[in-house]
Amino acid sequence: MDHFSYRDGRLHCEEVDLIDLARLAGTPTYVYSRATLTHHYTRLAEAFAAARPTICFSVKSCPNLGVLRTLAALGSGMDVVSGGELCRALLAGVPGERIVYAGVGKTDAEIIEALDAGVGTFNIESEMEFQVIAALAAERGATARAALRVNPDVDPATHKYTTTGTAETKFGVDLSRAREFFRRFAGHRHLRLTGLHLHIGSPVASPEPYVRALEKTAATVDDLARDGHVIDTLDVGGGFGADYRTGQSILASDYAARIVPRLAPMVERGIRIILEPGRFITANAGVLLASVQYVKQSTAKKFLVCDAGMHTLIRPALYGAFHFVWPASCAPQHVPPRRDERPDLPGLEPCDVVGPICESSDFLAQDRPLPPVARGDVLAVFGAGAYGMSMASRYNSHPLPAEVLVDGPRASVVRRRETYDDLLAHEREPRALTIGNPAADRRDTPP
Amino acid sequence: MDHFSYRDGRLHCEEVDLIDLARLAGTPTYVYSRATLTHHYTRLAEAFAAARPTICFSVKSCPNLGVLRTLAALGSGMDVVSGGELCRALLAGVPGERIVYAGVGKTDAEIIEALDAGVGTFNIESEMEFQVIAALAAERGATARAALRVNPDVDPATHKYTTTGTAETKFGVDLSRAREFFRRFAGHRHLRLTGLHLHIGSPVASPEPYVRALEKTAATVDDLARDGHVIDTLDVGGGFGADYRTGQSILASDYAARIVPRLAPMVERGIRIILEPGRFITANAGVLLASVQYVKQSTAKKFLVCDAGMHTLIRPALYGAFHFVWPASCAPQHVPPRRDERPDLPGLEPCDVVGPICESSDFLAQDRPLPPVARGDVLAVFGAGAYGMSMASRYNSHPLPAEVLVDGPRASVVRRRETYDDLLAHEREPRALTIGNPAADRRDTPP
Repeated sequence: MDHFSYRDGRLHCEEVDLIDLARLAGTPTYVYSRATLTHHYTRLAEAFAAARPTICFSVKSCPNLGVLRTLAALGSGMDVVSGGELCRALLAGVPGERIVYAGVGKTDAEIIEALDAGVGTFNIESEMEFQVIAALAAERGATARAALRVNPDVDPATHKYTTTGTAETKFGVDLSRAREFFRRFAGHRHLRLTGLHLHIGSPVASPEPYVRALEKTAATVDDLARDGHVIDTLDVGGGFGADYRTGQSILASDYAARIVPRLAPMVERGIRIILEPGRFITANAGVLLASVQYVKQSTAKKFLVCDAGMHTLIRPALYGAFHFVWPASCAPQHVPPRRDERPDLPGLEPCDVVGPICESSDFLAQDRPLPPVARGDVLAVFGAGAYGMSMASRYNSHPLPAEVLVDGPRASVVRRRETYDDLLAHEREPRALTIGNPAADRRDTPP
Repeated sequence: MDHFSYRDGRLHCEEVDLIDLARLAGTPTYVYSRATLTHHYTRLAEAFAAARPTICFSVKSCPNLGVLRTLAALGSGMDVVSGGELCRALLAGVPGERIVYAGVGKTDAEIIEALDAGVGTFNIESEMEFQVIAALAAERGATARAALRVNPDVDPATHKYTTTGTAETKFGVDLSRAREFFRRFAGHRHLRLTGLHLHIGSPVASPEPYVRALEKTAATVDDLARDGHVIDTLDVGGGFGADYRTGQSILASDYAARIVPRLAPMVERGIRIILEPGRFITANAGVLLASVQYVKQSTAKKFLVCDAGMHTLIRPALYGAFHFVWPASCAPQHVPPRRDERPDLPGLEPCDVVGPICESSDFLAQDRPLPPVARGDVLAVFGAGAYGMSMASRYNSHPLPAEVLVDGPRASVVRRRETYDDLLAHEREPRALTIGNPAADRRDTPP
């Protein structure tokens, strides 16, 4: 469910006409619906209410400050995986204790930033990481809480690149090593190891992998209790699917119906549940607007060449991901009844929707039946709110796109489009390094 | 051949110790060798001298202004594919007439910028593009030159994502349509169609695909001459390979030995030859320096978790590309005699070299035998000069890395590392759009 719909053949986000918006804001532009963000967050919170979860939005899926502020205002916590994301979450007004800091590569500088911000939980990925964070906390006289990320070795049936909870990944430790890990580290005074963290992959289109992972984890929680360890936090991670195709994913209530009963015994024991939804909240809350620059009929097929491409949205090239693409303005008979690879409508013609980048991986959609499209037309790429702008690059020296947040009849540019000056700002004045005199030149490091 | 070598077990770029440099500049950092850039450019110019080519460096491979200035000082022209790249080339001091503007998605704004800059040649990808550029040139009373990009339908035997000259891609027109295209457009007064442009893919590890493409193209040049068209330019494109593994690619002279004889008859007829090398010049002129944050021994294998990853260098994740990775400092017996997947050295242990990004595609090298590595060690990712920084993103809200250019004993930061402030600069102050009043709000578009 989302708030993008056609009215009189023109795509609207809530009450805003996206053709008008494209004219004002230019293209390519990401457009987010505040109502959809709110809807998904609220449905999830309601569905899981019995487990009284702390919902920590996964910032990496859509880190725009306007989006984070929207969710923070609903009471959302944040799941961050870098110092940059932590900085965003704090700026959005989220208190440190509602922030979970995960990620396999936390640097010392980032850990210190997180300690200073008083983040609620560090999700721990390895023995060495525990030791590093504990030592930095001790140095500063701080006390922090930690949850051990465990791999339940459950197949989430998703892309190999976004499968994260089976054995042999870089994430967490195998469940079989959890007791040994706690035995070794649970007594630390400055980093209190009292939680477990699961993350099995994304998107996971069914609750069953969660159920299997929770069964395995529950047994480990029992083992740890018998070993005398207090477990007060269980972070179930994220990965809930989104409707890239109409009806592709299940509802929050369907996930909850299967998952909440598995959580209930733990909740009764006083264990706090954390959820880390990202894609589930943002994917369908965003579209990417692109303008058709050229319509090209080659010998073999038709190409719609747009001003957005793999630099704007890399998911099709990197994961083979499907995004529904459709003109933002179309004749009544071409208003799509559902978002699907092959809509059953008259007068469509197969097209490749491609970008301006000089390589063959630069496509948004391939062999997709589309209604007639002309130069200058605006296309909407649906389900682009998650891992869209978040992964955008300046490849081929294209300035990064704008982002717009819609709220009812209002629209705000929540990230302005880059200019050539922005591309070049950090290159205009080279600075000589004084090799052999390290003290003099430590300036070139982020704060 | 390049200027990265170990001295007393420490990797140097020219005369600069890269451990010292990493300490000064921080990591992740891209480091380029001016001597290697110069070497590759000069060897190519010498090898092809008999064809008197205009060498137009492919900016997309490594768009840093310091790199472009280095090549411009050697007399290089530039091959650009966007307004951003054009802006870079002009800033680097390259005169407009030595710039070739290619790319399938040129916007009106970009075309006008290119007309104003007096670019030497527009490489044309489709009928509609010719018409658009011609109309814009006519409107401005300008005269520009154009080369038609033709697909010779030759298999370059490279990754499907970087194969660009077979039939059915978005690039150019099939060779069989060239005569019809010229018949229709060659007489235009404001856009003089007098050239042909080939680009078969990249990297192309052998001269043979070029030879076959040139044979086919030569026949078309003859046909066009018989039709009464003057062809004064042949752009052979780029795609020459680079030594990702030691000895993987052939020398400029090997390419030239097979290609120049095919060009000779055209040169004799007064046709100007353009070459567009990118990767060939920059790939081995750059390394990426990364610091090991954590060493993690999972049940199944060992992971070196770095501060660089798919956001810094996406080629392994996107293309399955090989990059030689080795510690920048190592014991004498571990100095690698060649860059290869499985160096024959004692005491190595298989490792995955991964980044801090929260997905399984975030790796730089997999199952690679490496010498002992400790937390804090600096790793060098070799052959990272082309399509490295060029494709970098801020995924997971990581600031973009720094770039350093080395020249003998000197090193300059030619792009400073981003800060959190840079990430957030365009998001701090949302700007309301006045929907329904287009004239008032046209500011949010790049210049």
